[in-house]
Amino acid sequence: MSDKVTVLVAGSWGTALASVLAANHSEVYLWTRNSDQAAEINGSHINNKYLPGISLPANIIATTDMETAVSGSKAVVIVAPSSGMRQVARSLKPFWKDEMLCVHATKGFETESKKRMSIVIAEELGCDEGQIVVLSGPSHAEEVVRLCPTTVVVASPDDKRTAEAQELFINNDFRVYTNRDQVGVELAGALKNIIALGAGLSDGLGFGDNAKAALLTRGLAEISRVGVELGANPLTFAGLAGIGDLVVTATSQHSRNWRAGFMLGQGKPLDEVLESMGMVVEGIRTTEAAYAISIKLGVQMPITDQIYHVLFKGRSPRSAVEALMGRDRKPELEAISQETWEQWHS
Amino acid sequence: MSDKVTVLVAGSWGTALASVLAANHSEVYLWTRNSDQAAEINGSHINNKYLPGISLPANIIATTDMETAVSGSKAVVIVAPSSGMRQVARSLKPFWKDEMLCVHATKGFETESKKRMSIVIAEELGCDEGQIVVLSGPSHAEEVVRLCPTTVVVASPDDKRTAEAQELFINNDFRVYTNRDQVGVELAGALKNIIALGAGLSDGLGFGDNAKAALLTRGLAEISRVGVELGANPLTFAGLAGIGDLVVTATSQHSRNWRAGFMLGQGKPLDEVLESMGMVVEGIRTTEAAYAISIKLGVQMPITDQIYHVLFKGRSPRSAVEALMGRDRKPELEAISQETWEQWHS
Repeated sequence: MSDKVTVLVAGSWGTALASVLAANHSEVYLWTRNSDQAAEINGSHINNKYLPGISLPANIIATTDMETAVSGSKAVVIVAPSSGMRQVARSLKPFWKDEMLCVHATKGFETESKKRMSIVIAEELGCDEGQIVVLSGPSHAEEVVRLCPTTVVVASPDDKRTAEAQELFINNDFRVYTNRDQVGVELAGALKNIIALGAGLSDGLGFGDNAKAALLTRGLAEISRVGVELGANPLTFAGLAGIGDLVVTATSQHSRNWRAGFMLGQGKPLDEVLESMGMVVEGIRTTEAAYAISIKLGVQMPITDQIYHVLFKGRSPRSAVEALMGRDRKPELEAISQETWEQWHS
Repeated sequence: MSDKVTVLVAGSWGTALASVLAANHSEVYLWTRNSDQAAEINGSHINNKYLPGISLPANIIATTDMETAVSGSKAVVIVAPSSGMRQVARSLKPFWKDEMLCVHATKGFETESKKRMSIVIAEELGCDEGQIVVLSGPSHAEEVVRLCPTTVVVASPDDKRTAEAQELFINNDFRVYTNRDQVGVELAGALKNIIALGAGLSDGLGFGDNAKAALLTRGLAEISRVGVELGANPLTFAGLAGIGDLVVTATSQHSRNWRAGFMLGQGKPLDEVLESMGMVVEGIRTTEAAYAISIKLGVQMPITDQIYHVLFKGRSPRSAVEALMGRDRKPELEAISQETWEQWHS
């Protein structure tokens, strides 16, 4: 088989993953709809909009033609924004072959359907969702292209495909763990953006490190609770895709979700925040999706609920954070049900 | 019963907890061996060495006399350095009454014996260790005295005493959760300092946010593994005393453990680092204790092992962090045994 691999969509994370793959494989095709961007990547090995100032490996070949990008490839890595995922998978379909490995690294839900990304991809490719491997973890794109040590997790219920994905990406700067819990890894990656927004809010209000750490911890408990309800292993949320990614997203100024929350906490209105960001803030859409999911499932998500009201119902950030610090007396941990335990540990 | 409560030892955390208690109770006695410090606290309501520039509540009464501090008190809160805990508990013993509530907020092990703090206290007071309540969580002393929102956990196997400890401390700025897992809360609070040292090392080497998040996550997995071996609930490590406190300790420049690691990462020798700190760095002693415990139990602690070798065996910080990023392929999660699950969830 050839050593060609493909990455779909040349945003910052797609381009960063292409550069990891370029260290391991002879040819990496990077598909983009934007012909100027493709010309820039092929001509000067730079993706100026998404990774300014960074020189990309010369064996990354950009193209706007899906057939050129995909045909003869052994693996396709999809890194589209969640809102564009279905369309990208649909464009891939005519050139897709079942023996190809499909990995995705997108964090979020489809807006209308609230479906996870692997379900959206599988629906469009006409395969089983268990065939799709998700890659997630604490990984700023800027640091990955600069070869700072980075650790991620790849997950699917299919051990063979998960091992193939691990082999595809692993090298000395990019450490890859495996996990069978595709549902948990996808949910953790998506839902943690809500908590990162909340951490930004708290920082924007000047509430300090203690408050932020409490928000992260209680937020983790909250997203684990929903995850378990949807079939995830609670321990996945204590892993790289959960707390690992949450720490990176909530404590770093690189993070769009944290930055959006910070500006809201400082009192800027949502439309002004969105305008100044320029890029997609996944956590905002995800808050809307998670709020709907929590109502549908009847699962309490107090932090998500407060952030939803700040984003969409005009609640002040201060009263939201203060409501979370209310005076009710609670135990810290909830028991894991026998059923959940047996599912993951038998 | 009177509304008098007592705090033993006027370091930064002891003084901060005294100021929380002073908001809830009429008289807070703060015991210190240092008569100049006692005079300063009583005269100008300031503890200049440990909380410079902060005005303390006037109902904190400092004393060097243990009997004055303790007699008639309904609760004694001990916040001694781990190395001094046995001696402080021994000094308390003559005035201790069994109906008093005993809470401690010290993170570490006794150096020689490697015993947890509640065991050390119980041995000296001649009571059951289950009677001692531990308080832990993400809580910089400086932020607590400035009334920044803070969340902690109190834990013991005795629900009644734990609820009393919650009632003792809780107010609008200081939120208190309960947990039955005294062992887990104590181990998490102590062991997380090792991982904070490691995060400082990584930052001192300039390795970036991705590497730090990976260290925190894998570090959490490692200290949970030891905790479970010693009887803790693995979920406690995903809570306030575990990941919550770890985030605060590892991402803030307030933290002595992070700072010590950072200086080591920049290439300073250990004795120079210790000299420049001025205060106790619990994580260094704890690394020594945990290294011994991991060998005794036969539990792998790869991060602790590397940090031990940096601190005590002259290994370079760079080769230690690089060794942790090695190229072996591993699954992310380990299964929880049936026995552990039944202990915590039946």
